[in-house]
Amino acid sequence: MRGLLVGRFQPFHEGHLAVVRELRAARPDDELILGVGSAQESYTWTNPFSSRERLEMISRALGEARVDRVLAIPIPDIQRHALWVRYVESLVPPFGRVYTNNPLTRLLFEEGGYSVEGPTLVDRARFEGATVRARLAEDREWTALVPPAVARYLDEIRAPARLAVLRAGATAPAGGSRG
Amino acid sequence: MRGLLVGRFQPFHEGHLAVVRELRAARPDDELILGVGSAQESYTWTNPFSSRERLEMISRALGEARVDRVLAIPIPDIQRHALWVRYVESLVPPFGRVYTNNPLTRLLFEEGGYSVEGPTLVDRARFEGATVRARLAEDREWTALVPPAVARYLDEIRAPARLAVLRAGATAPAGGSRG
Amino acid sequence: MRGLLVGRFQPFHEGHLAVVRELRAARPDDELILGVGSAQESYTWTNPFSSRERLEMISRALGEARVDRVLAIPIPDIQRHALWVRYVESLVPPFGRVYTNNPLTRLLFEEGGYSVEGPTLVDRARFEGATVRARLAEDREWTALVPPAVARYLDEIRAPARLAVLRAGATAPAGGSRG
Amino acid sequence: MRGLLVGRFQPFHEGHLAVVRELRAARPDDELILGVGSAQESYTWTNPFSSRERLEMISRALGEARVDRVLAIPIPDIQRHALWVRYVESLVPPFGRVYTNNPLTRLLFEEGGYSVEGPTLVDRARFEGATVRARLAEDREWTALVPPAVARYLDEIRAPARLAVLRAGATAPAGGSRG
Amino acid sequence: MRGLLVGRFQPFHEGHLAVVRELRAARPDDELILGVGSAQESYTWTNPFSSRERLEMISRALGEARVDRVLAIPIPDIQRHALWVRYVESLVPPFGRVYTNNPLTRLLFEEGGYSVEGPTLVDRARFEGATVRARLAEDREWTALVPPAVARYLDEIRAPARLAVLRAGATAPAGGSRG
Amino acid sequence: MRGLLVGRFQPFHEGHLAVVRELRAARPDDELILGVGSAQESYTWTNPFSSRERLEMISRALGEARVDRVLAIPIPDIQRHALWVRYVESLVPPFGRVYTNNPLTRLLFEEGGYSVEGPTLVDRARFEGATVRARLAEDREWTALVPPAVARYLDEIRAPARLAVLRAGATAPAGGSRG
Repeated sequence: MRGLLVGRFQPFHEGHLAVVRELRAARPDDELILGVGSAQESYTWTNPFSSRERLEMISRALGEARVDRVLAIPIPDIQRHALWVRYVESLVPPFGRVYTNNPLTRLLFEEGGYSVEGPTLVDRARFEGATVRARLAEDREWTALVPPAVARYLDEIRAPARLAVLRAGATAPAGGSRG
Repeated sequence: MRGLLVGRFQPFHEGHLAVVRELRAARPDDELILGVGSAQESYTWTNPFSSRERLEMISRALGEARVDRVLAIPIPDIQRHALWVRYVESLVPPFGRVYTNNPLTRLLFEEGGYSVEGPTLVDRARFEGATVRARLAEDREWTALVPPAVARYLDEIRAPARLAVLRAGATAPAGGSRG
Repeated sequence: MRGLLVGRFQPFHEGHLAVVRELRAARPDDELILGVGSAQESYTWTNPFSSRERLEMISRALGEARVDRVLAIPIPDIQRHALWVRYVESLVPPFGRVYTNNPLTRLLFEEGGYSVEGPTLVDRARFEGATVRARLAEDREWTALVPPAVARYLDEIRAPARLAVLRAGATAPAGGSRG
Repeated sequence: MRGLLVGRFQPFHEGHLAVVRELRAARPDDELILGVGSAQESYTWTNPFSSRERLEMISRALGEARVDRVLAIPIPDIQRHALWVRYVESLVPPFGRVYTNNPLTRLLFEEGGYSVEGPTLVDRARFEGATVRARLAEDREWTALVPPAVARYLDEIRAPARLAVLRAGATAPAGGSRG
Repeated sequence: MRGLLVGRFQPFHEGHLAVVRELRAARPDDELILGVGSAQESYTWTNPFSSRERLEMISRALGEARVDRVLAIPIPDIQRHALWVRYVESLVPPFGRVYTNNPLTRLLFEEGGYSVEGPTLVDRARFEGATVRARLAEDREWTALVPPAVARYLDEIRAPARLAVLRAGATAPAGGSRG
Repeated sequence: MRGLLVGRFQPFHEGHLAVVRELRAARPDDELILGVGSAQESYTWTNPFSSRERLEMISRALGEARVDRVLAIPIPDIQRHALWVRYVESLVPPFGRVYTNNPLTRLLFEEGGYSVEGPTLVDRARFEGATVRARLAEDREWTALVPPAVARYLDEIRAPARLAVLRAGATAPAGGSRG
């Protein structure tokens, strides 16, 4: 039986890796699907990295950590929450368990008939996407928050410079040069 | 001649019912269309209830209140305001009057050539969607704000639990478990 | 070689006109494309004017100022930033230079291989879309901020009344009469 | 318990009316929902009439035939069939039975857990949307195929002229004057 | 007063140029808008050229022919015909006349209150988009069908090779390598 | 370096498996991405199986054949071909080679700067999606055309019955019961 963990992984950090390790260790026979949410987004403050970049982070981090049997699948947003569980079902391979600590995700999957479990979070305050992004934007003490392979990749794609631009409150590119 | 009243009805409360009664009483020969706006939305703080649920609330409330000749029609959002009046026209049956107290709705329909009337609102501060939702989220003194049939229905679908989840600032499900 | 200047031009004000004059004067042989961003938007506080109205403002202002060889092209938003540069390329005629002072626009075009220049801005604080809109909404001291031909046009379409409605925090029309 | 009958009703013809009468007579206590499919379409050969026009036809025909307790609800298309049943559920009021003679509609609702019934069709070859549209396009012997009130309405909106244009293989308007 | 001529210009051929010349000559004081329809399409048999490429063809052809006061504006498709006229109005600058020989375009603009004229077509059978595309796909006797500047541009972008691929019945790229 | 093979895999058949084996054998150090095109489609004659079902077929077939280092990633369609290569890049992990025998896919990736190879096809006429689907619809001699694990899965989900319904020319569900 597969399990599903949905996240945006902006970026994929040590907290994510810890949860993935825990879930894989607890159920070694189960494949784990990482549903990469808001897959269509990139170059925004909340979603700075594209699906391409997030899948690459996950690939490198899991390779480095020698975690296998994990499938990362991009899930573009659908704007209709009442259809979301059925939409996810139609997109990723069959799964039987859902892991989430997000109360709305839990509610929707429970109303959809799934058994939902909340994985234990390690040091939640520290390992949180928003925190990692804020540190990246200041290029300050962020490398320890992500797996080493992800840190190298974020350097390669010059993530700190990108986050600095995005944090500056830049409007969408269509917003143009002068408002 | 039909009249059109556009709202989101999140949920359908006593203030809505009072306006509907008034409009039906003032023009007994006119059918009244309730345009259920943002029909594609659900499970968000601003739009917690699906079109299905809102149409059911309206059906039960009007049945209980013995108000007839009312057509409730879902209107999904269109993102282009300049087309909105024409879009509404293309979706619902022909109408000749528009009722609204929303200044933008008034402006758009007036520019579209309609005569617009502002129905008298009863106790606006109390009967407002946002207020009812806030009370629902706290499960506190909300039943008197909606028609009895709606109160029963909101209990059936466990609306207070849903609103509590949504008010907790839950991100979209695609936002996943950890940000 | 053509140059591209992307903006929303909400409305087209004296600051925009100054930049256009400067760019046309600096490179008299180059056509200049004005990419009118968020072209699908209108009747919102951030984007009160439709593409139709913005193209008309630009046409009148440039005619009055006797600036030629400028092409104004509407660019509706695409929600995927990673595709935005390629999307703009597919929509407007070929261009070789990009002018922008928006850091995200600069980043995206530079990653797309373009040379990007930041035009000198004249009196940025005064000539800013948000400022002009705020003054319009109060119908106070706004005429000097836009070219005379634009001022006359904004009067024709009763822009101050529209902005006053939009600034009042009006929700989308689908938000209806009572929330 | 409500029943649901999905169709496109292009136009609403005598065959549709016969089915509606039969279903209302067989289960007088059940409301009947007419789901007006492809509601966003109009001015094409397959979908010549807008939702507005189809809802008006239904309203006039049922008024003339004194059939009550029928709710006509527009259902714009969603492009993802795997989500379609859930989508319809989210849009129209709750229903317990589905009536259809379309094998794919039957399959999807059955896979969604519904009991599906196939209403008896009267003189299927004659009362079929495509036949009625072909006759309208030639303005030949079409009035007997639709309820009298619908015939009058189709005259009012000059349906034969519209169908003649559409049948001539006209491309979408964006297709322009010369291909 | 501006006039509007909507077409797809796939490609911009001698027939288009003749109509543009005629319209500019008949009303020298009127600007002419060329609405470039299906602007979002490219690399299909019916719409092989992007908006970028079509605007460039028009720019070169009109420069060569010394025709001025023509604005070419891309118009992406909107799927709702009932809104199409209003949509075009919202996108392009104000216009008062419409030129078309397409019966559906005529019908929609007439229902929208416009006066519509049908420009005289020169040698329709020869100068037709589909004919030009078929010749391009065979790289046979096509140069005389388009203005010289367009012929050179089509060579630059290797249009015959592209058309040959598209005509081979290639499915959309997402259709992949083997069906 | 990763390679990318785009297909719709409707269903995943022996021809697909042979290509995947060949590509993995030829470059054992390269991961292979299977881009599952038209991922949003299902329950149509051309795209009968959802992304969920196609990913499951691929997973079972590759497990059975003991082929590893293959990533299957759903790619929903984007309607703009000029953006397609950039779109695929943004969605799947980085890749350096493209494998395809589809001429349009080849053209687009070559124009995007990729080196494209055409894998050798085994018995193309026999192993083609359309052939497999036609046989499934008749429930006739189809099992040998797909890997054994896929044959069992197609039985589980009652694929022959589904294909029979779809082949019967069923219109979209929104097409409803009577046209």
